[in-house]
Amino acid sequence: MEKIKIGIVGYGHLGKGVEIGIEDNPDMELVGIFTRRNPGSIKTKSTPAYSYQDMLQFKDKIDVMILCGGSATDLREQGPFVANNFNTVDSFDTHQNIPAYFEDMNHASKNSQHLSLISTGWDPGLFSLMRLLFESILPKGITHTFWGKGVSQGHSDALRRIPGIKDAVQYTIPSDEVMERIRNKEEISIPSNERHKRQCFVVIEDGADKETIEKSIETMPNYFADYETSVCFISEDELHRDHASMPHGGNVMRLGTSPTGSKQFMNFSLDLDSNPEFTAAVNIACARAAYRLYTEGKTGAFTIADVPFSYLSSLSLPDILAKIM
Amino acid sequence: MEKIKIGIVGYGHLGKGVEIGIEDNPDMELVGIFTRRNPGSIKTKSTPAYSYQDMLQFKDKIDVMILCGGSATDLREQGPFVANNFNTVDSFDTHQNIPAYFEDMNHASKNSQHLSLISTGWDPGLFSLMRLLFESILPKGITHTFWGKGVSQGHSDALRRIPGIKDAVQYTIPSDEVMERIRNKEEISIPSNERHKRQCFVVIEDGADKETIEKSIETMPNYFADYETSVCFISEDELHRDHASMPHGGNVMRLGTSPTGSKQFMNFSLDLDSNPEFTAAVNIACARAAYRLYTEGKTGAFTIADVPFSYLSSLSLPDILAKIM
Repeated sequence: MEKIKIGIVGYGHLGKGVEIGIEDNPDMELVGIFTRRNPGSIKTKSTPAYSYQDMLQFKDKIDVMILCGGSATDLREQGPFVANNFNTVDSFDTHQNIPAYFEDMNHASKNSQHLSLISTGWDPGLFSLMRLLFESILPKGITHTFWGKGVSQGHSDALRRIPGIKDAVQYTIPSDEVMERIRNKEEISIPSNERHKRQCFVVIEDGADKETIEKSIETMPNYFADYETSVCFISEDELHRDHASMPHGGNVMRLGTSPTGSKQFMNFSLDLDSNPEFTAAVNIACARAAYRLYTEGKTGAFTIADVPFSYLSSLSLPDILAKIM
Repeated sequence: MEKIKIGIVGYGHLGKGVEIGIEDNPDMELVGIFTRRNPGSIKTKSTPAYSYQDMLQFKDKIDVMILCGGSATDLREQGPFVANNFNTVDSFDTHQNIPAYFEDMNHASKNSQHLSLISTGWDPGLFSLMRLLFESILPKGITHTFWGKGVSQGHSDALRRIPGIKDAVQYTIPSDEVMERIRNKEEISIPSNERHKRQCFVVIEDGADKETIEKSIETMPNYFADYETSVCFISEDELHRDHASMPHGGNVMRLGTSPTGSKQFMNFSLDLDSNPEFTAAVNIACARAAYRLYTEGKTGAFTIADVPFSYLSSLSLPDILAKIM
């Protein structure tokens, strides 16, 4: 069987995760990594690196491009450009901008007769799937999403923008007590800021004032002001030694009530040693699905909610019937 | 918007659960319940009951029939008969016979240009979906399925077939200790019989010998012989008072390892006050999906692995993008 030919756009943590993850998927082959940096300057595992500008030379050589740029700036621009020329998968994760991004990607990929599968990953992505599944099955109920314990890149970045902070890592920590109450089928509705704590490990510049920095953190709107936040000042060595890995995870829970009053509880959870490697793994399975949908003649933008799980899998129908069902 | 017109075939626990569950789904209406008993003899909540034999008079009045008969005997025969005339959803759950049942249903529904969605429910069903999802994302790893704590109908039935037993309920109890070890990312592979215990509550006939019965239970092949089994003799009153509800649940877990050695853990769990009401709720969402697939022109047999989650939901695409993703 011919392999699905994959390209990677952007070579940060996520791009590296995709390069590594493809190894476990023998129905795929990695053709190249496309970067805006000098391709000679990046050290891939073994995949050839090419300039972002040269991508169009690969139009007939790549089935699906996995977009590994950041959502904040890269994807809004790169997504439509690549979708104008290739099938794409991405993990665009700025929740409030998903409808607008979907529009842009749908326009580009319809225009080029390609398919783009957007906002895969785990939240948005698998967690979105579970929220949709849980509500579809239990229409009456409350859905709760918990994040962590894990490193939040967005919050870590916010810390690094504070003057006097040299480097920092922020952990989001869910309330075990609240999760336990929901698991015990208590019908509660508690806002996100009371269900999570924020723990900051901060390295300061020489001469910076700890008290001022602590205050800046604890009063930062949207990010920290509404949360129970702890700040711990550590050395650069400690940060690299103890906080270099990128674990994450979370829970989607729904407590539903049937018309007879039966309480029905559904829970999906992740506990990940490596957030970027897991996000990459979801993108890879979604690339398989995107390619299959495309070969069926589908074009335009899709989300993971439009993808049957059999399309994510390399198993045949007889194997699914006999071994999975 | 026109409502999806639903019929129920079979009025046991599951059929009753569907009748009740439809109330929470305003995009559907229940047209009738079809029974092999005398329709006048069954007391529905408010839905008209008809004879199984009269079903064909409803060919243009029902969009999807939800088959609520048992897998052991009813569905193998009823399924193809109904699929020859209607779109169907069922929760056929004899795992080893799913490939053969799929063939029969595919033949019948292709023949009649209808669509049948088989083996929905939670295992097979949602648990199958999760096994497939987890393996697709984490190709290297071990999947574990745990059942319980909950009442197993099959095992309760097996107890009731033992001479001297008047009535009985069997609980399947998973090992918390083994689940905890897997949640702690220990790479273990322990057979089902060492991961579950069986707890039997038994009412005996007057004069029956407890010791003989206990021995019959503990040595029954397939069902109890390989499991740690406890037997508790109780009165009929106690059985009705303490063991009349039908709770169930379980866990699908996968511990995967990435090529760099990162351990990634995925877990889906259910904790259900009412097993039949939950199975009914899954069937109802699947009836929505079956109807949509059918209106797109699809025919033949499908499993829940072929169904995009957006088809299970009554939400529109803009709502999914803005509220769920």
